[in-house]
Amino acid sequence: MPSWQSSFFDRYSRMAKPRAVEADTDIAELRRQYTYLSDRFGAVPREAIFEQASLGPVKGEWVKTSNASAGRVILYFHGGGYIAGSPESHRALVAKLAHTSEAAAFSLAYRLAPEFAFPAAVRDGLDAYRQLTARGVSPSSIVLAGSGSGGGLAFSVLLAIRNAGLTMPAGCLAMSPWADLTLSGWSVMNNARDDTALSWELLFVSARHYLKKSSPADPYASPVFANFKDFPPIMVHAGSLEMLKDDASRLGDRAAEAGVPVSVEIYDGMQHVFQANSHVPEARVSLQRLGQFVRQRTAPRAETYVAAK
Amino acid sequence: MPSWQSSFFDRYSRMAKPRAVEADTDIAELRRQYTYLSDRFGAVPREAIFEQASLGPVKGEWVKTSNASAGRVILYFHGGGYIAGSPESHRALVAKLAHTSEAAAFSLAYRLAPEFAFPAAVRDGLDAYRQLTARGVSPSSIVLAGSGSGGGLAFSVLLAIRNAGLTMPAGCLAMSPWADLTLSGWSVMNNARDDTALSWELLFVSARHYLKKSSPADPYASPVFANFKDFPPIMVHAGSLEMLKDDASRLGDRAAEAGVPVSVEIYDGMQHVFQANSHVPEARVSLQRLGQFVRQRTAPRAETYVAAK
Repeated sequence: MPSWQSSFFDRYSRMAKPRAVEADTDIAELRRQYTYLSDRFGAVPREAIFEQASLGPVKGEWVKTSNASAGRVILYFHGGGYIAGSPESHRALVAKLAHTSEAAAFSLAYRLAPEFAFPAAVRDGLDAYRQLTARGVSPSSIVLAGSGSGGGLAFSVLLAIRNAGLTMPAGCLAMSPWADLTLSGWSVMNNARDDTALSWELLFVSARHYLKKSSPADPYASPVFANFKDFPPIMVHAGSLEMLKDDASRLGDRAAEAGVPVSVEIYDGMQHVFQANSHVPEARVSLQRLGQFVRQRTAPRAETYVAAK
Repeated sequence: MPSWQSSFFDRYSRMAKPRAVEADTDIAELRRQYTYLSDRFGAVPREAIFEQASLGPVKGEWVKTSNASAGRVILYFHGGGYIAGSPESHRALVAKLAHTSEAAAFSLAYRLAPEFAFPAAVRDGLDAYRQLTARGVSPSSIVLAGSGSGGGLAFSVLLAIRNAGLTMPAGCLAMSPWADLTLSGWSVMNNARDDTALSWELLFVSARHYLKKSSPADPYASPVFANFKDFPPIMVHAGSLEMLKDDASRLGDRAAEAGVPVSVEIYDGMQHVFQANSHVPEARVSLQRLGQFVRQRTAPRAETYVAAK
């Protein structure tokens, strides 16, 4: 049973659902629709600090909370269907995750479509990871993370890191990842009516703008079609009511097939990126568990020194 | 402007549109929905003869009209979303095409999903082609043809023939091909309301049953993602109102990219497989042009003998 708080916000969300997306809906309106989603993320935690920064050619911002350990870095990919969103729009969510993870987070302003189509976002993610490690951050202290399309992108970047022959990060986590741009999961149909955040039309149009003429099943766009060999441990959380629920479970299937330690958790009665709504208990549970995953996968700096002796 | 006959049948079709497809709609009901579509195909031409036959392991039937030339064979793939349809359900359409083509047609009873998933249908098509040529039918006298999913399948089989290193047939034609199982053409959204035959739900569920865990962008399932190098000339007709309109135009794009002679014709105001409705003038025009394509691409037997001297 979902919590009563969740049920309340669900009803509110349904009432406020934005207007329909059509093929000729312009980019500005599409971005407004994603803004409407990230506006649900609530207030930014007061103790968080945000510092504009660049990792080589890739801009972004450091998100730091008072409890961050120097030995833990989250490389964060925001959502927005590859056409919208920013580090700013996701500040509340990233700060909460950074806090439960006791980690600093670098939130990437990767390039967006339609101005920069696939695979620009993946390249930016790979570049940022290279820069981070070139600056002395150990791969063993980095966890990739993301929400929505950013959750799928985290896995695409992980694939790019592996295929480039780089040392893998310590782990990869995703909240409600969009990891199949062919929209072929059964939940896309089964949950179309129950999903209060997304619509097939919004996802379809976003995919067209991002992919242009590339195949929607390219593993760098849709990691549910990738081979996860040599991936580090992964954790994926999704809501049982969302259209992208099966994206989460299929990422888990790929991990299991490759012998990768994996935890996929489907939260009953929850919606897309429910972690953003701090009023529901499930959000706190999920963020605690994701934070625990980051903490367990990475060592605080003191231990890193020992290991490097 | 579409003909008045077409407008009349459109209105009728809208009224009779079958009930909604859900994820748990059973196979029997899905097959009824496709039967409803092929029931529109009208009466079988009286002069046509149908003979049960096999090409090796693949069953089917020969469709012969009085004007068939011995030097022309159409290898025909019926529609039905890979889960329904049969040579019998498509007799009227195949007989009309055979007549305008002055060709005999072998209409395949390829294996259907979900009992036989992808790529069983493609394998059956390739086997039938091998058998046909093994029996002395010259590749230069064979044209692959199909409607709906069978139109996509004709291209998948053509791809399999090329990749197996066999001599290519004389041509390939398709009526309203379903050639992208990722459903990523803009027309899938743009024409969703205007299409009186298909629905996103019906196509989505059909794709799931056919593909099971295979990638929906596998070129053997979705030839819009294939390279058409060394393909023979192709002709594709579709209606401007159908959801699969862009499947036709993208097959044309692939052909043009590979330097393959190609003719893609989009019939204004027409629906999915409008050729089946003999009451609309556009159907006769399309079938005449497709028949002309077959006749021009293949030689009657007398000439074949000369060429073989």
